[in-house]
Amino acid sequence: MKRIFIHDVITRDGLQNEEQFIPTDKKIELINQLSNTGLDKIEVTSFVSPKAIPNLRDAEDVMKKIKRKPGVTYSALVPNLKGAERAILCAVDEINLLVSVSDTHNLKNIHQTTNQTLESYKEVMRFLSKEDILVNGSLGTSFGCPFEGEIPEEKVLRLIDQYLELGVNGITLADTTGMATPSQVYQLSTNILNHWPDLPLTLHFHNTRGMGLANVMEGIRAGVIRFDASLGGLGGCPFAPGASGNICTEDLVHMLKFMGYEIRTDLDQLINAAKYLQSILTHDIPGQIVKAGKITDLHSTSEI
Amino acid sequence: MKRIFIHDVITRDGLQNEEQFIPTDKKIELINQLSNTGLDKIEVTSFVSPKAIPNLRDAEDVMKKIKRKPGVTYSALVPNLKGAERAILCAVDEINLLVSVSDTHNLKNIHQTTNQTLESYKEVMRFLSKEDILVNGSLGTSFGCPFEGEIPEEKVLRLIDQYLELGVNGITLADTTGMATPSQVYQLSTNILNHWPDLPLTLHFHNTRGMGLANVMEGIRAGVIRFDASLGGLGGCPFAPGASGNICTEDLVHMLKFMGYEIRTDLDQLINAAKYLQSILTHDIPGQIVKAGKITDLHSTSEI
Repeated sequence: MKRIFIHDVITRDGLQNEEQFIPTDKKIELINQLSNTGLDKIEVTSFVSPKAIPNLRDAEDVMKKIKRKPGVTYSALVPNLKGAERAILCAVDEINLLVSVSDTHNLKNIHQTTNQTLESYKEVMRFLSKEDILVNGSLGTSFGCPFEGEIPEEKVLRLIDQYLELGVNGITLADTTGMATPSQVYQLSTNILNHWPDLPLTLHFHNTRGMGLANVMEGIRAGVIRFDASLGGLGGCPFAPGASGNICTEDLVHMLKFMGYEIRTDLDQLINAAKYLQSILTHDIPGQIVKAGKITDLHSTSEI
Repeated sequence: MKRIFIHDVITRDGLQNEEQFIPTDKKIELINQLSNTGLDKIEVTSFVSPKAIPNLRDAEDVMKKIKRKPGVTYSALVPNLKGAERAILCAVDEINLLVSVSDTHNLKNIHQTTNQTLESYKEVMRFLSKEDILVNGSLGTSFGCPFEGEIPEEKVLRLIDQYLELGVNGITLADTTGMATPSQVYQLSTNILNHWPDLPLTLHFHNTRGMGLANVMEGIRAGVIRFDASLGGLGGCPFAPGASGNICTEDLVHMLKFMGYEIRTDLDQLINAAKYLQSILTHDIPGQIVKAGKITDLHSTSEI
């Protein structure tokens, strides 16, 4: 069966939305546990202004103090040149750039039009071209925008083109607020892989409307082998209070492993990491496997 | 696009597991709201011993007092001859029989081996053969048993054969404790529809491990067009406290409608019924759409 690559984004996309600041030593412990599970990539933090996202104000500390495991790519989100400089000083393996396909969402999110952001990335890429570092280009609201609604496919394809011209090594399509449907995922992923058969393409889903794992299945059917997910399913959306966040890493790995896909991540260690995550939070995590156990966790008839 | 048939089981599979008894008039109001949405089938109740399932002790009252809508099939679960007699007196449209593929689960559930239960259904079918009524045969633990683990496909096929010999009109494969994986659903459904191309086959999934909607997609890909679901996603499993219950009707209809499938059920009325359900419960419902809204519910940039 196909090898599938799993990227965890809990300490960036998950924790940035939490009401509470998670202490630095706990973030480091969490990432160290994740490293031991054998994940392919961990998005550790974001080198963003501490004023913009106070929860990630310890980016340098976290990045420098985690124990890195060979084989794991340690990535960080970077919004601008300043962030890129900070990330380089911490020797991250990969820098993740982000722009929304929707102008309205980009303006709301970072007060720039989509074109302004891409223009500013030219300077970032010039700076990074002197460094030995991978760069990934993420496209937010690739499957729909909470303000604009439907996002035309041509817009996504055009932005991939612009990112590739800038020199990025891979592309991530992010379903920022959980609007993608399985058929849409299949169609857009198929079109992109037809255009760029060798493009390292990652899909980043949120489970806001319950379609997350169905979307993964249709992504795989279209040929995608890289998926972002967040431990415990954290990473809520401000428009959907109480709804699920990113797709849940341990639920994703559980499903794919029991379907026979080849995955490097150890499921039991991942479940333990999710239990640790639960222990440092003050609310219930959306993930199901931590509550329900694996399908191979059998019960005795004397239970209940 | 294909017509998909949606069956709601909230007032049977959902409410039977609730800690509180939902008052009869509220059940009736809920079913009347569901009828108005245009669902294809509603599993109203179970004519089981009130001692066995006290939450459904008002089966006759509910069945007799709901307002029936033409085009909706009103079904009830029946465990034995006594139940069948009670159901006939209430003029249900369809009787649903249930046996677990796993002997251990059947023994634990109703203190009979699988064969003993099927044997007892001969008498039930003899009685029903004089009535103008549909009979559906459900197979619990079709995709896995929490005690025995894996369920061999041959066992499921053999039991379908036995049900069909008894004279049932349709078959439901139930994933009683949420153990089915998408690839397993595709394989088993494909095999069954190869054996019996004209069989009205329903899939009944629980979202216990987050795979529910992914399983639906693979069922559809295999040719299945009938799905059970529970309003709000109620219907927990005693082995998975805090985990999701049945797949959620409004989340299912939302996904399929936005993929372009033809569905008779009105999504907005369904969401309103789910909100009514939430209002008569004392805990949060697992469904996502009630919290997140439809993907077409756009936001103004002045929000947040």
